[in-house]
Amino acid sequence: MLNNKKICLLIVAGTLSLQLFAQKKQFTITEATNGMATTLAPKSIKQASWQPGTDRFWQVVKTGNNEALVVNNYTKNYTDTVLRLSQLNETTKEKLKSLPTIHWLDKEYVYYTNEQNVEKGILTAKGFHWSHWLTLPKEADNLTVDKSRKLAYTVDNNLWLLLEDKTPVRVTNDADKNIVNGQAVHRNEFGIDKGIFFSPKGNYLAYYHMDQTMVNDYPIINWDTIPANPHIIKYPMAGGTSHQVTLCVYNPATGKTVTMNTGEPKDHYLTCVTWSPDEKYIYIAILNRDQNHLWLNQYDAATGKEIKTLFEEKDAKYVQPLHSLSFIPGSNDKFVWWSQRDGFMHLYLYNTNGKLIRQLTKGNWVVNELIGFNEADKQVIYTSSEESPLEKHVYTVNWNNGNMQRIDKGDGIHTIISSEDGKYIFDAYSAAHTPKKSVIRSTDGSYSKVLIDAPDPLTDYDRPQIREIKLKAADHKTTLYGKLILPVNFDSTKKYPVIVYLYNGPNVQLIHNSFPQSGNLWYEYMAQKGYIVFTMDGRGSSNRGLAFEQATFRHLGDVEMQDQLKGVDYLKSLRYVDANRMGIHGWSFGGFMTTSIMLKHPDVFKCAVAGGPVMDWKLYEVMYTERYMDTPKDNPEGYENANLLTKVKNLKGKLMLIHGTDDNTVVWQNSIDFIKKCVDEGVQIDYFVYPGHEHNVRGKDRVHLMQKISDYFDEYLKK
Amino acid sequence: MLNNKKICLLIVAGTLSLQLFAQKKQFTITEATNGMATTLAPKSIKQASWQPGTDRFWQVVKTGNNEALVVNNYTKNYTDTVLRLSQLNETTKEKLKSLPTIHWLDKEYVYYTNEQNVEKGILTAKGFHWSHWLTLPKEADNLTVDKSRKLAYTVDNNLWLLLEDKTPVRVTNDADKNIVNGQAVHRNEFGIDKGIFFSPKGNYLAYYHMDQTMVNDYPIINWDTIPANPHIIKYPMAGGTSHQVTLCVYNPATGKTVTMNTGEPKDHYLTCVTWSPDEKYIYIAILNRDQNHLWLNQYDAATGKEIKTLFEEKDAKYVQPLHSLSFIPGSNDKFVWWSQRDGFMHLYLYNTNGKLIRQLTKGNWVVNELIGFNEADKQVIYTSSEESPLEKHVYTVNWNNGNMQRIDKGDGIHTIISSEDGKYIFDAYSAAHTPKKSVIRSTDGSYSKVLIDAPDPLTDYDRPQIREIKLKAADHKTTLYGKLILPVNFDSTKKYPVIVYLYNGPNVQLIHNSFPQSGNLWYEYMAQKGYIVFTMDGRGSSNRGLAFEQATFRHLGDVEMQDQLKGVDYLKSLRYVDANRMGIHGWSFGGFMTTSIMLKHPDVFKCAVAGGPVMDWKLYEVMYTERYMDTPKDNPEGYENANLLTKVKNLKGKLMLIHGTDDNTVVWQNSIDFIKKCVDEGVQIDYFVYPGHEHNVRGKDRVHLMQKISDYFDEYLKK
Repeated sequence: MLNNKKICLLIVAGTLSLQLFAQKKQFTITEATNGMATTLAPKSIKQASWQPGTDRFWQVVKTGNNEALVVNNYTKNYTDTVLRLSQLNETTKEKLKSLPTIHWLDKEYVYYTNEQNVEKGILTAKGFHWSHWLTLPKEADNLTVDKSRKLAYTVDNNLWLLLEDKTPVRVTNDADKNIVNGQAVHRNEFGIDKGIFFSPKGNYLAYYHMDQTMVNDYPIINWDTIPANPHIIKYPMAGGTSHQVTLCVYNPATGKTVTMNTGEPKDHYLTCVTWSPDEKYIYIAILNRDQNHLWLNQYDAATGKEIKTLFEEKDAKYVQPLHSLSFIPGSNDKFVWWSQRDGFMHLYLYNTNGKLIRQLTKGNWVVNELIGFNEADKQVIYTSSEESPLEKHVYTVNWNNGNMQRIDKGDGIHTIISSEDGKYIFDAYSAAHTPKKSVIRSTDGSYSKVLIDAPDPLTDYDRPQIREIKLKAADHKTTLYGKLILPVNFDSTKKYPVIVYLYNGPNVQLIHNSFPQSGNLWYEYMAQKGYIVFTMDGRGSSNRGLAFEQATFRHLGDVEMQDQLKGVDYLKSLRYVDANRMGIHGWSFGGFMTTSIMLKHPDVFKCAVAGGPVMDWKLYEVMYTERYMDTPKDNPEGYENANLLTKVKNLKGKLMLIHGTDDNTVVWQNSIDFIKKCVDEGVQIDYFVYPGHEHNVRGKDRVHLMQKISDYFDEYLKK
Repeated sequence: MLNNKKICLLIVAGTLSLQLFAQKKQFTITEATNGMATTLAPKSIKQASWQPGTDRFWQVVKTGNNEALVVNNYTKNYTDTVLRLSQLNETTKEKLKSLPTIHWLDKEYVYYTNEQNVEKGILTAKGFHWSHWLTLPKEADNLTVDKSRKLAYTVDNNLWLLLEDKTPVRVTNDADKNIVNGQAVHRNEFGIDKGIFFSPKGNYLAYYHMDQTMVNDYPIINWDTIPANPHIIKYPMAGGTSHQVTLCVYNPATGKTVTMNTGEPKDHYLTCVTWSPDEKYIYIAILNRDQNHLWLNQYDAATGKEIKTLFEEKDAKYVQPLHSLSFIPGSNDKFVWWSQRDGFMHLYLYNTNGKLIRQLTKGNWVVNELIGFNEADKQVIYTSSEESPLEKHVYTVNWNNGNMQRIDKGDGIHTIISSEDGKYIFDAYSAAHTPKKSVIRSTDGSYSKVLIDAPDPLTDYDRPQIREIKLKAADHKTTLYGKLILPVNFDSTKKYPVIVYLYNGPNVQLIHNSFPQSGNLWYEYMAQKGYIVFTMDGRGSSNRGLAFEQATFRHLGDVEMQDQLKGVDYLKSLRYVDANRMGIHGWSFGGFMTTSIMLKHPDVFKCAVAGGPVMDWKLYEVMYTERYMDTPKDNPEGYENANLLTKVKNLKGKLMLIHGTDDNTVVWQNSIDFIKKCVDEGVQIDYFVYPGHEHNVRGKDRVHLMQKISDYFDEYLKK
């Protein structure tokens, strides 16, 4: 929302000479790339956390060169500075440059890591008392510290456990490096982001065990050594032999390990791993390799025996489990289950007999996150897209009676951290005209306090006009959302070159009501250079429900393209668009889309940049690809239609491919094989690689990347 | 030489409208790239050969769809068609599309290969009688067929021998693939192009044995498989641990192998391997790793014992042995030795006591090839640069009295094949205005017959004017040769963009008096597009003597650049040169030079293309690099000065690097590491790779490469 002062300024500005505009700053390419996360980030709360079992809110406050951990109890007007960086550095061997992230284990205990050192703290009336906990081996990874004050980590492919400050115990002892313990499996699909699961009281340690000896090798070259050397990874490609995963439970009291009897076929998926609160059972959602049939199973953690299947889910296209079970606080037999079974991602209350007690949420919108529980008021706290597909708000739903209420205020995307008891939330949100607002709220709506209402960090800059766009998809009925970023000093009687930025693959949504309104300062940077930038989420993208996403099933790159071409039609309908000077850019799935459109509709775009592109889905990994495409054997036409290697001859425009040489997601072979095909067919194409970078070019090198992309458009669209 | 008709046409053309010029053809990029070797090749003799022990000259003649092997005795006016392709195909299982190369073993026996099949022929009065000799295993390589009708070859790293049509015998049995037998060693430096040496009568088999287990691995990725897989090669880098080579002699009669006692240090070089005519001795020129001290040693082939050192050669910079000993026909104790010891490559007659009998050639020019001997007239037949550094002519020198005489006629580069007795030569030569002339001559000058005087294959094309350039090097005294190719329809009142093409490294000379005058149709293609093309051999390049080449010792890229900048000064002195639109291109050493000049003199060239470039000599192989640069430890300043990785920040112009992904000469890491440095330093650069190509992009893909390079110059120099 504009305040009156700003409106006045804008009106006046319109009548002044261009000199006034000239005083506004242009984004540098560094600002355009990394500015929102660094120098231009709106003011916000650092290291926000709730102390478990309390309503005390913690944050890091910077004062001069020092940093301090400050605790507040806003409802009681209590504030205390508990830990200063300078203080902490008096007790540590390895000096810290800034306060590390303090992780709460419970009401008293915390820990932080500093390089290989794990430091334990206990909160006393005098502040934290620190002691050195453990020095991890250099190869350690996946550090997991449990609230029971036990600690597990992996070293290479094996799992280690530290109990009661004794010498770490080696839990697994697999000599073959392709048998991996305690790490995320299934290439992090199905919401899997870890492989270590302490039981609720810390008495047992469950972990993923993955045998990938039977999976294809793929070479990643390490160029940092002289000479270069190959690092071999296991990369299962669509339709190929996949790895075999089991779940093991280690009992430190006996030193014994039990494997859950998840049975055959061994290349099925073990998802949603959850302990029962009483530590007796483990729940695993077994998904078949076809990904269209899920069994939620209960296993005896002590014997590994399968007790029962609670229920099954099936879908003609695919089931995509993404979330573990969330047990209702204090209950050993009621849990919240996530499912898209009614066409939208919603929450369901089940008991452990597999009985559905209640569908907790319902509607043509999706639940985004389960934030926590308010046990006293019997509420699940969650975020959803109920207000708008472009926003995310926080709600409670009573698990007994289904009563729902929104508990935030203000448009936009709300990011929530709740206190352990669910009575308070920390709500940081932004919207088109709200750079960032940080608020403490009670979930009952009785209390709220604005901690920071960040000023607009971009007021000094020459900002473009942005139009929020709604279009009908190629099916003539689905609404699609997009943004049109107009060149600064826009003159509707002129004609401008256009850049379309897209992704349009599953699990990603680009268009939100958040700050900055454009969605990306690089768009604004290009708008400052005189481009119109357009971006839109077509069918197949995220947050719009199952039918919207599954429209692309078995023919990736087809429906999405029809929708993107609707965007192109819209652009061409604008009299100020120069349809002869249109460019397109995307990365990953967006790189696949970019290349697809250049080969399948070669007359639309004059130039394009495709980063980390999938060129042939047979080269992409089993879990993702088979979900959306089935196997190459089951769906040969789908694969052939999406195979860009066989279509290079169609290229008319200028196309630059970019790839990180260490890409272990979309492997480098995609673009190398495409380049080879281009050479074979006599097709000219441009190429660039980012040595040492994986699937995304991150950090300061991203500035080089965005400069390269910008230069490419300047080279071919400015003329 | 222009004939009168052509001169008239040129005079007339100058007064006519441009329409006449428009009727002349422009080279396609395919013609510009591969035309001189294919569709635009001047007419020439195919598969020219002399039948051993005779004065019968053989060639392949095409008549319609058939090909035939035709024998002539020109002095006796004898001609016969001996073998037609259609005839041969009646006797072979695997049908041939064209006549294979027929190799003479002696007066009667020949062989040819067809895929894995070796076919033996005997010449009778009725023509050839063919029999199947051997089917080689698929992995066979280095096939060597001796005139004794024995046959050796390698399979992977081991050596096999076939005697008297029996089952092949495995000569070596090394399980470790990094112990290599029967292959060229020392990365083909020192003129080494084979590893199998049959003794003169075929009774013994000498072979190189190379242990490279101690050499660094380097990964070449094979992108042809899905997934890609690494192929590990052994690549010794300058200053690093090198391989260890010995020479072994296998005696088929006993099945025993003896290793020549070449001693220590084991990483010295075994060069110039030569059997004594009586099969008793083997001569090896041992070169120390520093490459400044050579011992020509005689070994007892039966015991491996070192008999004696015949003589030594030393040089303050380096000795570069390139040629085996050539024994005088009929003599067991006199041989010709090549040496640059007097500053130019010349021939010396020695006896096997190590006594110098006579320096056979002498002067400020170099011997290029030893063609053969005329035993009757006691003559060595050789080619040299005596007439001009830009030409190569054939001479004889009498080994008893030193009498020399030139035996060819006509300017240019003469390529010679002599009859076994040295009485006749086949001379194919070309010069600026002589497309190709094929002549049979007697070495005594009494006879010559022109077989073909090829018509100019380029008369229909719009050819540029070419100026032969002589400049003084940066030392103000050395003459350098170059060529200036002017744009077609050149108008000296206009200003033109310029492309400099260069190599300027050791062992290569670009400027010759040969056809086409430009030296390369791509230069002419660019001239047709309106460019001036300039190319020049500076100091450090080949064919001008030792001081000229050694001027760059220990500081590659320095003196060469000073000389190339003299070329730039010359270009800038021309009023029709647009000094703001100059580009430069080179490959390999030329890629190193191109990148060097862009970084060390960033204001000279607006854009550049560097292919397969050495970016840091520490990444290049031991043999070549240490010869010219010593080791990184001995010459840190030289390496640092030539290291381009540390100078990326200087880049101002547009630079495109190009690399073959399978490059096992200048490894890919050179350009990948350079790109990484550019990204680190925020320097924008362009890149392209040719997947599956080694150090040079050959075949039809070369057309894609030259198109890419041409486009790059068009993009940045045409404006």
